[in-house]
Amino acid sequence: MSEFKVVLVGASGAVGHEILKVLDERNFPVGDLKLCATSRSAGKEIAYRGKYYSVEETTPDSFNGADIVFFAGGAASKEFGPAAVERGAVIIDNSSNFRMDPEVPLVVPEVNPEDVKWHKGIIANPNCSTIIAVVALKPIHDAAKIKRIVVSTYQAVSGAGAEAIEELTVQTKAVLEQGKITPEVFPYQIAFNLIPHIDVFMDLDYTKEEWKMVKENQKILHDDSIAITATTVRVPVYRSHSESINIETERKITALEARQVFEKSPGIVVVDDPAAKKYPMPLFSSDQDEVFVGRIREDNSIPNGLNIWVAADQLRKGAATNAIQIAELLIKYDCLKKK
Amino acid sequence: MSEFKVVLVGASGAVGHEILKVLDERNFPVGDLKLCATSRSAGKEIAYRGKYYSVEETTPDSFNGADIVFFAGGAASKEFGPAAVERGAVIIDNSSNFRMDPEVPLVVPEVNPEDVKWHKGIIANPNCSTIIAVVALKPIHDAAKIKRIVVSTYQAVSGAGAEAIEELTVQTKAVLEQGKITPEVFPYQIAFNLIPHIDVFMDLDYTKEEWKMVKENQKILHDDSIAITATTVRVPVYRSHSESINIETERKITALEARQVFEKSPGIVVVDDPAAKKYPMPLFSSDQDEVFVGRIREDNSIPNGLNIWVAADQLRKGAATNAIQIAELLIKYDCLKKK
Repeated sequence: MSEFKVVLVGASGAVGHEILKVLDERNFPVGDLKLCATSRSAGKEIAYRGKYYSVEETTPDSFNGADIVFFAGGAASKEFGPAAVERGAVIIDNSSNFRMDPEVPLVVPEVNPEDVKWHKGIIANPNCSTIIAVVALKPIHDAAKIKRIVVSTYQAVSGAGAEAIEELTVQTKAVLEQGKITPEVFPYQIAFNLIPHIDVFMDLDYTKEEWKMVKENQKILHDDSIAITATTVRVPVYRSHSESINIETERKITALEARQVFEKSPGIVVVDDPAAKKYPMPLFSSDQDEVFVGRIREDNSIPNGLNIWVAADQLRKGAATNAIQIAELLIKYDCLKKK
Repeated sequence: MSEFKVVLVGASGAVGHEILKVLDERNFPVGDLKLCATSRSAGKEIAYRGKYYSVEETTPDSFNGADIVFFAGGAASKEFGPAAVERGAVIIDNSSNFRMDPEVPLVVPEVNPEDVKWHKGIIANPNCSTIIAVVALKPIHDAAKIKRIVVSTYQAVSGAGAEAIEELTVQTKAVLEQGKITPEVFPYQIAFNLIPHIDVFMDLDYTKEEWKMVKENQKILHDDSIAITATTVRVPVYRSHSESINIETERKITALEARQVFEKSPGIVVVDDPAAKKYPMPLFSSDQDEVFVGRIREDNSIPNGLNIWVAADQLRKGAATNAIQIAELLIKYDCLKKK
């Protein structure tokens, strides 16, 4: 099997860290590896498979000879993505910069793997909350056609990066010790609090995070007719986003049938045994690659309603794992550029 | 103004503590006060307005001469409620024991104050999550008739009592210090976790807490045609429940109109200015009596949809304050029993 030259931009952040971990775990055929970041992190040493790599400041020439470039997030892909593509790499971008670009496939391998085939050099990795939802929604959509979903999210702080993890720890200690709290990453104290505000406010007073849930789910499922509304909320949990999803389908699907459908679906673990107190929780979904689905209940407030509760590690399936699964598809479908 | 003989059963718990605080703050006309609890707490000294009261073990004779009896929660009202009523008291019961009894009014003073008038000795205080939701739902129901609501809750640990508050603190410290965690009050670790399971599991795999949201809202609003579905979730927050509520109305109500309706409604504070990052949060609604409503958005996934986010202190408006407001109504409407 061939090996590939991989560049990781944003190597020093929470998602970058996870990408390296997952590349290793999945035994991804990394031939040559280059780690890039902003000048602030340049020079930092980061280990991969026992070898230390010095983080370089990203420049267009960072991509010379690269086969696959992972952008962990932020503005970097907007600035350097075109240079990487020009140099013959395929980029897998975890930022929101290109997700809604009609020329760019937005891919969740369990849902729309074939979309990698029409890439023009850039493939977008969806928003973490979207990935987690859509893995669970896809089999229900296939089985009973989804008309509408109402989502409320419970999002872990690590979705906001490594500094956010530290902020939760520092603030939590401060609350317990009755010390002073100075929010930096989040707009308010997140320890023992909830913040119903993720990303910037946009049209109709929805946040960008809420709009992503609408637009990205529709794009990945290739169905703009699915009506979606979302309320996204930050919770004082380190890792794993959870989502309460109410689904209305064209055709009635019973809780039993939904459970069977989920059990047969890739990337899903059903945890749904109320009598035994089994349901998805961040505590048990953290550091896992699957989307955990439970609390599967018929919603009899409408004829064809279903409630589910999902949890998944947003740094893994919601970011790193999904990105690397996309890279694996590129290899499988022979969609990397020939050098 | 007359003064009344008040008995508080469950004086040593989180809700009992709050009832005493709110009686004091609202200058409730307490003439004589008796504090009762189980034998476990008997003998404990609790202060009210600078005077110490010794907690008595509840017996039927605890209610001799009582005008108003507050039951803070649990099984006590089932055991002792009839004895209190026989002795001529009116009981305001914060437990779920009598809430769905057709002979018992279930009252939120901002919503259905007139219902206190037909009491037969017992008035039920609704579930905390229901109170918080229904204060916000009532003005929308009056303005545009609610057809359906989809609720996801974010419930603070203090809803599970004083031991639950302690458990969150102990577990949080244990996580930070990498110590051992042994859940006692909650079925799993709650620190930095979410538990989608409040109260026992019942029909159709919904929890009792979820069924309460359905049945109690319908009873308080006198409208069984309102379709309701709920997912209730415990979050690592000390105080104040939050709820993401999606509302479908008969008539279209714009976000602007909804905001105006909320602003005119009793018991509600509108906190809804995205540009200034103003929205309801547990951090600011704790130790307050009002229901804070924000993130008011039209939900265009259906013709007449509205999303709101509410937060309120479930020990105050969700329990103690509501109970004392009911007692105030009993006095105002002259509905106490004549001795």
